Amino acid sequence: MSLSAPSQHVAPALAASLPPSREAVTAVTRALAASLGNRLVTSLAVRQQHGHTLTWIPNQPPDAVVFPHSTEEVADIVRLCARHGVPVIAFGTGTSLEGHVNAPFGGVSIDLSQMKRVIAVHAEDLDCVVEAGVTRKELNEHLRDQGLMFPIDPGADASIGGMAATRASGTNAVRYGTMKDNVIALTAVMADGSIVKTASRARKTSAGYDLTRLLVGSEGTLGVITEITLKLHGIPEAIAAGVCPFPSVKAACDAAIATIQSGIPVARIELLDDVMIRGVNAYSKLDLPETTMLFVEFHGSQAGVAEQSEAFGAIAQDNGGGRFDWATRAEDRSRLWQARHDAYWAARAMGPGLDSLATDVCVPISRLAECVEETKRDIEACGFLAPIAGHVGDGNFHTQPLVDLADPEAVERCRGFIDRLVKRALAMEGTCTGEHGVGQKKMQYLEAEHGAAALDAMRLIKRALDPQNILNPGKIVAV
Amino acid sequence: MSLSAPSQHVAPALAASLPPSREAVTAVTRALAASLGNRLVTSLAVRQQHGHTLTWIPNQPPDAVVFPHSTEEVADIVRLCARHGVPVIAFGTGTSLEGHVNAPFGGVSIDLSQMKRVIAVHAEDLDCVVEAGVTRKELNEHLRDQGLMFPIDPGADASIGGMAATRASGTNAVRYGTMKDNVIALTAVMADGSIVKTASRARKTSAGYDLTRLLVGSEGTLGVITEITLKLHGIPEAIAAGVCPFPSVKAACDAAIATIQSGIPVARIELLDDVMIRGVNAYSKLDLPETTMLFVEFHGSQAGVAEQSEAFGAIAQDNGGGRFDWATRAEDRSRLWQARHDAYWAARAMGPGLDSLATDVCVPISRLAECVEETKRDIEACGFLAPIAGHVGDGNFHTQPLVDLADPEAVERCRGFIDRLVKRALAMEGTCTGEHGVGQKKMQYLEAEHGAAALDAMRLIKRALDPQNILNPGKIVAV
Repeated sequence: MSLSAPSQHVAPALAASLPPSREAVTAVTRALAASLGNRLVTSLAVRQQHGHTLTWIPNQPPDAVVFPHSTEEVADIVRLCARHGVPVIAFGTGTSLEGHVNAPFGGVSIDLSQMKRVIAVHAEDLDCVVEAGVTRKELNEHLRDQGLMFPIDPGADASIGGMAATRASGTNAVRYGTMKDNVIALTAVMADGSIVKTASRARKTSAGYDLTRLLVGSEGTLGVITEITLKLHGIPEAIAAGVCPFPSVKAACDAAIATIQSGIPVARIELLDDVMIRGVNAYSKLDLPETTMLFVEFHGSQAGVAEQSEAFGAIAQDNGGGRFDWATRAEDRSRLWQARHDAYWAARAMGPGLDSLATDVCVPISRLAECVEETKRDIEACGFLAPIAGHVGDGNFHTQPLVDLADPEAVERCRGFIDRLVKRALAMEGTCTGEHGVGQKKMQYLEAEHGAAALDAMRLIKRALDPQNILNPGKIVAV
Repeated sequence: MSLSAPSQHVAPALAASLPPSREAVTAVTRALAASLGNRLVTSLAVRQQHGHTLTWIPNQPPDAVVFPHSTEEVADIVRLCARHGVPVIAFGTGTSLEGHVNAPFGGVSIDLSQMKRVIAVHAEDLDCVVEAGVTRKELNEHLRDQGLMFPIDPGADASIGGMAATRASGTNAVRYGTMKDNVIALTAVMADGSIVKTASRARKTSAGYDLTRLLVGSEGTLGVITEITLKLHGIPEAIAAGVCPFPSVKAACDAAIATIQSGIPVARIELLDDVMIRGVNAYSKLDLPETTMLFVEFHGSQAGVAEQSEAFGAIAQDNGGGRFDWATRAEDRSRLWQARHDAYWAARAMGPGLDSLATDVCVPISRLAECVEETKRDIEACGFLAPIAGHVGDGNFHTQPLVDLADPEAVERCRGFIDRLVKRALAMEGTCTGEHGVGQKKMQYLEAEHGAAALDAMRLIKRALDPQNILNPGKIVAV
C-alpha cells in the first residue's frame, strides 16, 4: 500500500436502465433455473408474496424468487444479475412495514429463509454467528439451553438478516439497544458479487470505517446480508413485570422520563393509549381501565428486580399513576403483559374488514407526550381509529390507522395524517422512523430530516458501492 | 425525488496532486491570514506541535495551523483548501497515539480547541450538544451540577471531537460502550465544504444510512467533525471499587469472563500485569503484590453495588483470586485505584530516557489470556520492558514498549514486536486496534484484518466523499 499520490479514480460502471429488458430477465432466470433447479420460483403467487408492501403502494412482484443455501450462492446470483443489469431484492420473512421488499423495477427476490444455520455460539464471548434466515425466535430456542438470549424483539418473528437490514429494535431497545448496537460483524454480498466481512469478532474496534453500521439499516441497497455475528446476553436471573394506569399520556411520559433519569435499568417500558386498551379489552377479554397504561419489565437479580419495581412504583405514584401491579413468576407476568402482547392483533380487530397501516416515528423523550397528544387529536379529527403503542423509553411510538385501502378518499386521508405525523416528529427534533425503516413510504421525508447535503452524501455512497443501481433499487435514496 | 431511472453518475473531481504546490499553499495561507488574522499560525513550533505522531514516524508538520470559532468558519476553510487542492487535517488535543494528526503531505491543520461551547444540555433527554473542542473533563465539570455525566474515558483529557473521530473508548466501555454507542448525531464539514448534520436528536432512528457511525472512527478522512450530540448518564447513586490479585493472567481473565457471563453490570474491569504493578509500586510508592491484578468498579444503587461487589468477590475466589478489597467512599476508592490511574506515567517512569510506544489490540475475551500470555513471552524475548494494561471486559489490551527512538535497532525490534502482536490478535479473530485507531501506524494491517473486498469498499467510500483526497490524506485508506 502506497502513502504517495492517490491512485487513479475507478470509473463507475454505467447505471443499468431500469426496469431491465425482457431479454435480460430471461437470460438471468434461465441461468438461475439451470443452477438452482426448483429453488428458482416464478409462479405468480410466490412472486406476489415477495412483492407486497403492507402500505398503500400496490403489490410489485419480482420476476423471480430464488432460495439460496449459502453466501457463495448469493454471490453467484448477484454476479449474474449484475452482468445483466437485473435488480436483486433481499427478502427475509417479509414482515417489514414500509415497502422494503417489493420490486418496483422487477428483478430477482433473494429469499434467505433457507439459510438457517446457527454457525457458532461462543458462550464465553457472549456472541454467535448465524445465517441471515434464522429468525429471532429460532435463535432464542437454540440458545435457551445455554442460559443465553438475543434480546432484540421487534414483535414479528423476523429474520436476523432482515432485522439487521432494517436496523430493527422494539420493546427492549431501551435496555439492550437496537440492531446497530447488537451486530458485531456482518458478511454481505456487494453489488459486484464480492463477499465482504465487515469486522472481526472483537467486541470493539477502531480499525477503519464502520462498514457494519453502514450496512445495518441499509435495507438491502448497499449489500445483501448473509451472515451476522451478534452480541448475546445471559438470561437474567430474575424478571419482574408490571402494569400501571395513568390519568393522561403526559403523566405516563413523565413517569417514564423520571424512571430513565433515575438510572433504573428498565428492560421494557411500553405505553398503550386508551384506544389501544379498549381494543385489547375486547380482543383479550380483559378488564383494564380504559386509560393510558404503562407496561414495564425489569431484568436482574432477585433483589435487583424487586428494588427496581419498588422504585418504579414510587415514581409512578409521584406522577399520578394508579396501582402498580407487578409479579416475577412467569405466568403472572404473562397475564399482566397479555394486553401488550396482543396489541397488534387487537388493534386490527378493532376495524373488521379494514386494513391496518402501521407506521412509526421517534422524538426526544421530553417531546413525546406533546407529540402523542397532538397525534391523538389529529386522529380524532381524521375520523378513523388509530390505536397507539409506544416504546416510551426511547421516545418511539407506533400508530396503526385502520382504513379501507379500496376507498381512495380514506387512503388520501390516511396519507395526509402520516404526512402530518412525520412533520410533527421532525419539528420536535425527531426522526421519520424510529425502527420501521424507510422503504418506499418514508423516502420523501429523508431530505426534510437530514438536509440536502446529508442526503447527497448518502447518494454518493450508494453510487460508489452500487454504481449499476441493482441492489433494491428505488428504496431509501433514489439514484 | 423520482422513483424512475437512476440519475446520471456525477463524475468525480480530479484528485489533487499531493503534496500541493507552493503556490497553492501560499494562496491558501494568504487568504486564511486575511480572514482569520492571528488565528492563522505558521510558526515552526506550533506546526511541529500539530505534526507529531507519538510513533516512530518522524514529525510531519502542516504548512499552517488555524483556530476556527464556528462550523461555518471550518466550512470556509475547507472550501478554500478544496479550491486549491490543499489537505486539511482536523486536530483536537493531539493525544492520539498512532499517527493521526501529522501532515505527510503538508496542508492546513484545523485545530478545533477554541470551539468550546456546550451548546445545550437536555437533562430530560439525557443528551447534550457540544462543539468539537470541548474536552471530556470540561464536559463532566459542566454537567456535574445537574447530576449527569459523560462516561467515556480514554485516559487522556481528549476533545469530544477527537474522541468521536477515533471511535475512542477506554476503561468503562464494558458498561457504557464506545463513542459509536454514545454519539447520537454529528455536524461535520464534508470535503466540498458542505455542512452535514447526520441525524436528529431522537434516541434511535432507521431513517437512512448511518452517517453518524460512518464518521465516528473515520479519523478526519471523510469529514471534519465540528459538533457532537452525545448521550449522557445520571451520576450513579453509589460507586464501589475494588482490587484483587490473581496468580496468573489466565486466572484473572477467567474471573473477568465469569463476571461478564453472570450478568454483573461491571462498570470497569481492568487488568494490570506483574510488570505494570512493579512500575506502579515504584512510581506511586505502593506495596501491591507483584502479580496480575484486576481493578473493578461497580455503579448502581447502594444495595446494588454491594450485591455486585460480593458476587464479584465470590467469582474471584472461585478463580484463585486473593483477597478482594472494595470500598464505596470516594477517598477509599481512589486509594485502591491509584495504581490504575497512575499506570501510564508509572510505565513511562520504568524506562528513564526511553520513549514509550503505546499500542493496543482487541480479541474475543475467550482468547484474551492466551493473547496476553504469548505477548508477555514475546516481550521477554525482545529484551525491552513493555508493561500491559487491559480493558479486560472487552478483550482489549495495551502495551507500552519502552525503547530509544534514536536507536534504529531498538526501533526495528519494537516494530517487529508490534507486527507480531497485531498478527497474533488477528489470528485469534481480533482486531489490530480496539480503540487507538488506524492513523498511519496500523494502515498496513487493514487488508489482513478486513480482506481486500472490504478494504475496496472503504476506498470507494473515501473516493466518493472526498474525490480530491484532501481530508487527512494518507491515513486509514490510501487512495
